[in-house]
Amino acid sequence: MHNDRTRILVDSIKRLLRRNAIVHLRKIVNKTHGADLSMVFRSLSITQQLKLFEMIEDIEQQGILFSELDEGAFPALIEGIELDKIVEVLDHMPTDDVADLIGQLPKQKSDAILEMMKKEGSEEVEGLLHYDDDTAGGIMNPDFVALREETTAKEAIESLQKEHFDVEMPFYLYAVDEYGKLVGVSSLRQLVVVPPEERLKDFMSTDVFSVETSMDQEEVAKIVARYNILAVPVVDETNRLVGIVTVDDVIDIFREEATEDILKMAGVGEEFVETQSVIRSTRIRLPWLFASCIGGIIAFFVISHFEGSIKKLAYLAAFIPVIMGMGGNIGTQSSTIVVRGLATGRLNIRDTWAVVFKELSVGFILGAFYGFMIGLVAQLQYSKSMLAVSVGLAVISSMAVAALVGSIVPMAFARINVDPAVAAGPFVTTAIDIVSVYFYFRIATTLLGI
Amino acid sequence: MHNDRTRILVDSIKRLLRRNAIVHLRKIVNKTHGADLSMVFRSLSITQQLKLFEMIEDIEQQGILFSELDEGAFPALIEGIELDKIVEVLDHMPTDDVADLIGQLPKQKSDAILEMMKKEGSEEVEGLLHYDDDTAGGIMNPDFVALREETTAKEAIESLQKEHFDVEMPFYLYAVDEYGKLVGVSSLRQLVVVPPEERLKDFMSTDVFSVETSMDQEEVAKIVARYNILAVPVVDETNRLVGIVTVDDVIDIFREEATEDILKMAGVGEEFVETQSVIRSTRIRLPWLFASCIGGIIAFFVISHFEGSIKKLAYLAAFIPVIMGMGGNIGTQSSTIVVRGLATGRLNIRDTWAVVFKELSVGFILGAFYGFMIGLVAQLQYSKSMLAVSVGLAVISSMAVAALVGSIVPMAFARINVDPAVAAGPFVTTAIDIVSVYFYFRIATTLLGI
Repeated sequence: MHNDRTRILVDSIKRLLRRNAIVHLRKIVNKTHGADLSMVFRSLSITQQLKLFEMIEDIEQQGILFSELDEGAFPALIEGIELDKIVEVLDHMPTDDVADLIGQLPKQKSDAILEMMKKEGSEEVEGLLHYDDDTAGGIMNPDFVALREETTAKEAIESLQKEHFDVEMPFYLYAVDEYGKLVGVSSLRQLVVVPPEERLKDFMSTDVFSVETSMDQEEVAKIVARYNILAVPVVDETNRLVGIVTVDDVIDIFREEATEDILKMAGVGEEFVETQSVIRSTRIRLPWLFASCIGGIIAFFVISHFEGSIKKLAYLAAFIPVIMGMGGNIGTQSSTIVVRGLATGRLNIRDTWAVVFKELSVGFILGAFYGFMIGLVAQLQYSKSMLAVSVGLAVISSMAVAALVGSIVPMAFARINVDPAVAAGPFVTTAIDIVSVYFYFRIATTLLGI
Repeated sequence: MHNDRTRILVDSIKRLLRRNAIVHLRKIVNKTHGADLSMVFRSLSITQQLKLFEMIEDIEQQGILFSELDEGAFPALIEGIELDKIVEVLDHMPTDDVADLIGQLPKQKSDAILEMMKKEGSEEVEGLLHYDDDTAGGIMNPDFVALREETTAKEAIESLQKEHFDVEMPFYLYAVDEYGKLVGVSSLRQLVVVPPEERLKDFMSTDVFSVETSMDQEEVAKIVARYNILAVPVVDETNRLVGIVTVDDVIDIFREEATEDILKMAGVGEEFVETQSVIRSTRIRLPWLFASCIGGIIAFFVISHFEGSIKKLAYLAAFIPVIMGMGGNIGTQSSTIVVRGLATGRLNIRDTWAVVFKELSVGFILGAFYGFMIGLVAQLQYSKSMLAVSVGLAVISSMAVAALVGSIVPMAFARINVDPAVAAGPFVTTAIDIVSVYFYFRIATTLLGI
C-alpha cells in the first residue's frame, strides 16, 4: 500500500518533468516529505534530482532528503550544488547525520566543507568522525539537554525555550555535575508536571542507563530496545556525558544488522549489492562461491575413489542428490536457528552443549523419518534390501551430521568472537556435502560388499 | 558485554536461591530492571520464578516483567499467582501490552481477568482484542493525549498534570474536532516553548501522518522509520483517532519480521523454535524438508534415466555434487538479495525484469568463471576434452538457471501477494537441483555420444 503511494509519486513527478511543468512540480515537491522524495530520487537522473532539489523551499526538508538518500547517492548529488548551499543545509541538520554524510565524501571535499561550517558545529562533526562508525561514539548525537542538578523545573523550561532549539529529540533532560559527569535523568514530561520551583535533583531518577563511546552499536541498540527508552546517554571513560543515541538510529541499526546477517548467511558479503552494477555485484559474490567450488572438487575426489563400485552398481549415483539435499537443508535449518538465536539473545553461547545436543536429536529423528521414506523408494525401485538399508542409513547419518555441524560451527565461531553468520554460510553447507557423500559410499560399499 | 551482565545476574540469583538468602535476593531483585529479570526467568523453574516475582515491590516493574517474558511463559507463570494480584499488575500496564498478554490465555482465564479489571480499562482491552494481531489496530495503544484545537498551551499542560498520567509516551499531543476526528498534531516540546495563552490550532501542524486500523504492522513500522517519528496516530475508517503506535513497538516489529524472514528462508517455519522442545521442534521442521525429499527423489529418477551412461563412464557421477553445489549456492544468493531487497524497500516488484536480467547476467559471468575452473579439473584428471567441456557447460547452465529461478520466483510470489521469503526457501533450491542434474547429463551424454 505504501509502496503504491511511492510509485504514484514517482510516476507523477516523471510525467511533470517530461512536460517541464515547473509550477506543478514545485507544488508537489514542497508538499512531499524529504524521506519520500529520497525514494523518488532513486529513479531519477542526477540532472533531474538537482532540478527538484532546487525547488525545495524548506531547508529542513532539504536536510532530511540528504540524510535519507541511499548510501553513495549523496556524493554524486552534491557535485552539482554550490558549497555555500551544502553547508547551509548541513548547518540545519542533526550533527550525527552530518558526520555520516561527510564520512562518505573524498578527503578534499570534506575538508572544504568542514572549513566552511560554523566553527562550533564543525568541531562537533570532526569529533564524531574520530569514533569508529559502528560504535556508540560513531552514531551518537552530540546535541542534548544537559543541566546541573540544582536547576529548577522553571529554569529548565526557560533553557529549553532559549538554548536548546537544535536538540533533535529533547525528551530527556540529563543532570550532570560540575565536571560534566552524568548523575541523573528526567523527562520533559516530568518537567511539566512538577511544581516550577522544584529542583532537578529532587525529581530526577539516579538510575540512569548509559553506554560508553566504544560500545558496539548493536549492543547499544539492544539496550534501547530492552528498556523501551527513546534515547540512551553516551559517556566517555570518565563518565562525562558526550552524546545521546536516539531511538530512530536504533531502528536503522536493527534493520541494517538483520540485513547484514541475512546476506552473510547467503554468502553475498555484507553490503547490499542490489543497487550495484553487474560487474561490481559479480566481484562481491565471486569469492563467496569459492568455498562451494573447492568443496565440490573435494566431493569429486571422494566419489572418484569409489569409481569401481559405481561401475558395478551405477544406480548408487542416483541417490547422491537426495542424500546431499537432505543434509544441506537440515544443516541450514540448524545454523539459521543458532545464528538468529544468538543475534536476538534467545540463545547464549554458554548453552552450546544443550543446543548442539538438541539439534543432534532433532537431526536423528528427522533422519530416521526421511531415511525410512527414501530407503522405501530404493526398495520399491530395485528390490534390494541391502541397498535400501544403505540409503536409509546414509540419510540418517547425513542429517545427523548436518544438524551437528550446522549448530556447532556457528556456536564455536561466536565463542572465539567471529561473526557466526559468516560461519552459517557456504562453508557449513559445503563441509556437510563432503561428509554426506563420503558416509554414503562407505556405508553402501560395506553393506553391499563391493 | 551485555550478555555477560545477564550471565552474572543469573549466576548470582541462582546461587542466592540455593542458599535461600531471602534478604539478599530481595535486594538484588528490587535493584534489577523488569526487562533484565525477564531474561533471568528463562533459566529458572516456575517455583523459583514465583518466589522472585513476589519479592518485587514496584508494581510497574512487575508489569514490565510480564510484558517482557518470552512468548508462552506468561500463562505458565500466572498459574501460581492470585487473580486479584494479576489484575492489579495489569491495571498498571499500557493497554496494548495487556491485550497481548490476555490474548495468550485460554478463554476461561481471560474472561475471568477481563471481568475483574476496572470497567473502563477492560473495555479498552476487549476493544483491542477485536483487531487482527498483525495490524495497526492490534498493536496500537488506546491511551493517548487528544485535545480540542481551541485548547491553550497552559490548559494542555494542566490536562497533562491532571488526566493523562497513564499515557505511555505523551510526546505528541493530537488535536481532534468535535467528532473525535484527527485534525493536527503538536509536541510536548512545542507546548513548553510557546506562550501559555496560545491555542493549539495556532501552533499545531496539520500535516499529520496517520494510519488506518487495518494497515499491516510492517507497513506501520516502515512509516514510523521513514519519517523518524516517535509515534503514529491510528484512525478508524471515519478518521476518528482511536490509538497510537509507539516507536518501541516498531522496534519489536522490525526484529520480529527480520527473524521471520530469516527462518522462512531457511525453511524452519515462522516462529522461533529454539525455545521449543525437541519433539515440537521436530514437528515444525519436518514438513519443510518434504520439498527437499520429493525433489531429491525426482533427481533420483532423472539420474536413473541415465544409468546406462553412468555404467559406461562412472566418473560422470563424481561431478554431480559440484554442479549441484554451485547452482544451489548462487541460487541462494539471488533469492536472498531479492527477498531482502523487497523487505527493505530497495527493490520494487515493478523492477522485476531489470532485476531478473541482472541476476541472469551475474549468473552467466560467474558460471563462465567457475565452469572454466571445474572443467580444468576434469581435463587434468581425465584428459578428455569433451568431458571437460561438458562439465564446464553444465556448471554455466546450472548457475545461470539458478540465478534466474532464484530471482524470478520470489519476485513472482511478491506479485501475487505470497510472502517471497517462503519462496526463497527449500523450494527454489530443490527445483534448481533437479534442473542442474538434468542439464548436466543431457549435455554430457550428447557431447560424449553415449
